[in-house]
Order: sequence, then C-alpha cells, then structure tokens
Amino acid sequence: MADEDERVRIGIVGCAEIARKLCRAISLSPSATLWAIGSRSIDKARSFAHQNGLSSSVRLYGSYMEVVEDPDVDAVYLPLPTSLHVQWAVLAARHKKHVLLEKPAALDLPQLDQILEACSSNRVQFMDGAMWLHHPRTSRMRELMTDPQLFGHLNSVRTLNSTFCATPEFLDGNIRVKPDLDGLGALGDLGWYSVGSILWAAGYRLPTSVVALPQVTCNSAGVILACSASLIWDWRRTVATFHCSFLANLSMDLAIIGSNGSIHVMDLTIPIEEQSASFDFTPATKFVELHIGWSTKPERIQVSSELPQEALMVEEFASLVRGIKRSGCQPDSKWPEISRKTQLVLDAVKKSIDLGYAPVHL
Amino acid sequence: MADEDERVRIGIVGCAEIARKLCRAISLSPSATLWAIGSRSIDKARSFAHQNGLSSSVRLYGSYMEVVEDPDVDAVYLPLPTSLHVQWAVLAARHKKHVLLEKPAALDLPQLDQILEACSSNRVQFMDGAMWLHHPRTSRMRELMTDPQLFGHLNSVRTLNSTFCATPEFLDGNIRVKPDLDGLGALGDLGWYSVGSILWAAGYRLPTSVVALPQVTCNSAGVILACSASLIWDWRRTVATFHCSFLANLSMDLAIIGSNGSIHVMDLTIPIEEQSASFDFTPATKFVELHIGWSTKPERIQVSSELPQEALMVEEFASLVRGIKRSGCQPDSKWPEISRKTQLVLDAVKKSIDLGYAPVHL
Repeated sequence: MADEDERVRIGIVGCAEIARKLCRAISLSPSATLWAIGSRSIDKARSFAHQNGLSSSVRLYGSYMEVVEDPDVDAVYLPLPTSLHVQWAVLAARHKKHVLLEKPAALDLPQLDQILEACSSNRVQFMDGAMWLHHPRTSRMRELMTDPQLFGHLNSVRTLNSTFCATPEFLDGNIRVKPDLDGLGALGDLGWYSVGSILWAAGYRLPTSVVALPQVTCNSAGVILACSASLIWDWRRTVATFHCSFLANLSMDLAIIGSNGSIHVMDLTIPIEEQSASFDFTPATKFVELHIGWSTKPERIQVSSELPQEALMVEEFASLVRGIKRSGCQPDSKWPEISRKTQLVLDAVKKSIDLGYAPVHL
Repeated sequence: MADEDERVRIGIVGCAEIARKLCRAISLSPSATLWAIGSRSIDKARSFAHQNGLSSSVRLYGSYMEVVEDPDVDAVYLPLPTSLHVQWAVLAARHKKHVLLEKPAALDLPQLDQILEACSSNRVQFMDGAMWLHHPRTSRMRELMTDPQLFGHLNSVRTLNSTFCATPEFLDGNIRVKPDLDGLGALGDLGWYSVGSILWAAGYRLPTSVVALPQVTCNSAGVILACSASLIWDWRRTVATFHCSFLANLSMDLAIIGSNGSIHVMDLTIPIEEQSASFDFTPATKFVELHIGWSTKPERIQVSSELPQEALMVEEFASLVRGIKRSGCQPDSKWPEISRKTQLVLDAVKKSIDLGYAPVHL
C-alpha cells in the first residue's frame, strides 16, 4: 500500500447508485483514498455516507462545486447523468482535478472533445468508467488474440448487452431513459460496452462504416430502449454486430471469431463472480471423420482476480495520477483515445438511426 | 428394431462426402435400411461401397436414374449439388419415392415449390437434411423456451455459422462455391442452418422484413463466401442477426435471449461429441447488491442422445414413411413447411444482397 500521504485523494461528485460501488472500489485500491463526497444537498451527502458506512474523515459537501474546489482533492469521479458530464468534467479539469468519468462519456463527440481538450490543456488524466477493460481476463484474451497461430486474423465479432429493466417506472422514469438526462438511453448505457468491446477486439482500428439495424425501440419520450447496429471494416471484410436492450434478460455476450480460433465470453462487463472469471477459447477446429464431432473442444479458461475489476480501474487511474503528480509524467493518452473512438462510433450509430438506418462512413 | 421386411428401404443418389455419414446413420436407424446406391458410374458406386464397408446386399448402380426407378426402393436420400435438386427430387417423387433432401433444399423458392408440389401430389414424405432439429437437445431447449416463467417472450437471436475452408482449392473449386452447382455458396450451405435456427427460435413465425448487411464476400465467380443479415419481427420488435462464413474458424453459435431467460449453444448444427450435447441456460438474472456479480449463474444443461442426430433424422423420416405405407397416413406437413419458410427467408436475404442491402418485406 502506498504511504497514506501518497494515496490519490478522490472526490465523488454526485451520490448515484453506482457511486456506492466506486466507494468500495476506492477503499480496496491501495493507491487511492476517498476524500470527499458532494451531493446536491448536505443531507443527501450525509445520508449516503451513513448508508455506506463511510469513515468520518470523508468530507461531505452539499454541492458539487465544493468537491471540485477542494484544494486537497486530486481527482474526481463523476457518476452524473450524461447531460451534466461536459459541464462538470470541464470544470473539474480547470481546477486541475484528474477525471474519472462514468460512461457514456458524453452525449456526443463535440461534448467529449470539450472534456478531453480541458483535460489535456490542464494536464490531468482522463479515464472513462468501463471497468471490464481492467479485468485480467481482458488481457488474457488479448494475449490469445495476438497469437497468429492460435487466433489468426479477426473475422467477426458479435456482442449483446441487455439488462431487464422493463418495469413501467424504469422505462419512463429512470435517469437512463430521460431525454434531458441520458438522451442516448440504451445506446449510451449498454452500447458503450457493445461498441467498446468491438473496438477492443478490433485493436481500436476504426470501422470503415457503421449502419444501425431496424427496428429501434424507443420510449414515449423518444429515448432508445433497444437497438442494433453493424460495424464494417473494408480491410479484411471484418464484420461486427451488436444489440443492446433494456428489455431482455441480463446478457453480456461477446463472441470473437478469428481465422484460426475463437473466443466466447458470457459475462464481459460484470463477471458473474468477483474472484474469478472465465471465457471459452476454441482453437483451430475441424470436424472429425464423417463430420460427427469436432476435432478439438472449446477450452474454458479461468482467470482469477485479486481485486474486483472496478478496484483495478481505480488503481490504474490512481497510479497514473500519482505518476503525473510525483514524477511529472504526461497523462496517458491511451484512455482518452479509447473513449474518443467509442464515442465517435456511438455518434455514427445514432446518426444512422436518425437517417433511417442509412450507412454512415467514418 | 422393425421386422427386416418392414424397414424402409433407402436409396442414395450420388456418392458425395456427406453420403458416407448418412450410410452410417441409416445403419444405426432401426426403421431404415440402405437398399441401393447410385453414382454417375458403376465404378464410383463400387469404390464408395468398398471404402465404406457396405454390405454386399446393397444394390450398386452406375446412374442416378436406376435408383429412382428401382421398384424396391421406398425412399431416396439426395446429397446432390443444389442445382440438381429440383430435377432429381421431382423425378423421385413422381416415382413415388419419399424424399430426404440435403440442404439447402433448392436454389430458390420456385424450385422448392416444384419439389414440394411433386411430393404432395404423389403423396410422399419430404424432409430436408437439417439434422440438428432431430437432436433431443433441440426439444429440451424448446421446452424451456415455451415456459413463460423461465424464458418469457423472445427478444433477440444471434447466430453464427462458419467453417474454416479457406484453402485456395476450396474457395475456387469446391462444389459448394461453384456457381453452376451450389450458386448460393455459404448462404445456402451455412445460411440454411442460420436461418433455420432463427426461425426455429421464433416458432416459425416469419419475420416482417429481412435485410442483408454489408459487406458480402464473394469468390471470383461471384459465389458468396461470407455474409450477414438481420431479420426483424415488428411484432414485439424481435431482432435476429446471423453471420455465415467459409472464412473463419469453425463456429455454430446460437444465442436466444428472452425477456426472462436466455439460451446459449456453441455447437448447434454438429455437436462436439455424439453421445451428449449441452447448452447454457440463464434464468431470470439480476445483479447482486452493488452490481458486483450476478444473482444466478448460467446452468449447463447436458442432454444425452442414444443415437447420433443424423440417425434420429433417418428414424423420424423412416417412421413417417412407414406410417404412409402401412397405415395410409398423410405425409407430415411439418417438415416441408419448415423447409419452405427457410427457403423463403434465404431468398429474401439473397434479394436484399442483390438490391444492395435494401430491406425486403415478407
């Protein structure tokens, strides 16, 4: 564990449900400490601190601004509705706070670019809240995929993200389906994972074009509850499709098919269990004689994780922040680039939907 | 086992590779017996019989016609290139032979309708060679899917069929990619499974529309090597997508997502092992507190099979034939209807490709 004085001091701006998970993640991360929490009223902040058993040393604020202005806060975690991201992330960066931003990063690329520009010009680290990227399973899959014998070149990707939230209250009332709060609906909330995992599988090479698939399902306010899209790389004719939905049973499938091998994951974004996560790897397979079976079986690969993926995310973020603070390192450009590409493709999907499912070239 | 005299006598027309698998299936099926084999030359038929250790009682013919005209043959199995299906299936039906036809059933719906009309007017059973429909795993999945508590209503289907055949010889020379033999290429060969499994999952309710997805990959003769499409049901906004390819590692995934449960299969069309096949069933699942795991784990359901699925197919076919012969039953309309719907959707995908990925309404 880092010296107490050297731990990165994180302030949480907003007491959303997901902030509870991050409080725990910060407490598990050796390099970070929860320094402050701000809500729209001091009562809400107190009640959050009480419900989550936070130490009395955590500073409680009755406004977001006080967290951003606290000179002892190194970095902020922003679990705010998407429509508020640009305002608060830019403000935080101007106050020299490093920014860990809940996904979707922004409502569109111009907003995200404002955020990234503010982070870059203030020399603060930016990272979005896609936790699965920090699980050791993700690196293990990447290792296999970069082996030309075992995996070959990427042929196609299929991903499916859904959470069954279809109570009438959720579908018309939740933050994630309110046009003024999270206007992208399921495309923002779940599509961030879908697009992110496809881009990850493609080594962050942007697709040549994107086309949304009929039919998009919206709520009465026009917010997307379910949609599908296809991404195409002219290069090698790689194809990916995703479907994201608030209306189906929980699923977070990823299937990555290569020329020599394939990978299947059932619980990509939130592993079924914390301590260990698995995926199936099918090496180059043929049919046995007479085509009555397969020559090799898919292998289940189990990857254990000492810390939950959200704590690993905080740890990665905090160690980058420490490097900047202590050693004068530059902010790592990898994370803002990943977020930017994800947002760019999300924008293209939205545009394709708005154009009546026309292809959008990137 | 049926009395030897009562076993349905099957003649095989053509010595394709797949015919070897069917010879074994017929020998394993208690209600059927292999009666005759015809090839384009008597030498080929003899060599096939020798290589496959067939009994000397199997009649060998140096032409397809002799099988069709053999008065002792009850039924024919036709593993011919698709372009020959209409000619030989119609001829067989006119000779009152029941028809077990390798998939894809025909090059297009008008051809299949000629075949089905000939079978119907000659009162012979028709069945296509989709073996997976006869595996007990398929019925077990259907049981779960019809349980409104366990599965709910169908939300989306994803399927992926590929076989890595990308040797230069295969891609330009194999029957399945020759425009004059199997003009539908991967769409016919693998797409038959993709479309068939999606329609199966949808309870054979036809989609409202079908749209092919860019980019289709073709060989130098214009035959499809890889393609994707999306099927849409306006009713409940169900969406399915499939991808079929000769260019990727072997895969035959099916993911069926319902409102309350989901099913994942990795080896739908040819199970990894003959004696037992599995699928994963995820019942209604939520996140646990703090969203750090799932409330229920996917359950691996193992289904054993006394006979391989192709023998069960032959058994089902032979028992229908026996019912018609002995008891004057009508041919079962279920099987031709399944084939017809599959062909109809396949035609729509082809049309969408030809129209430059325009949606085709059914």
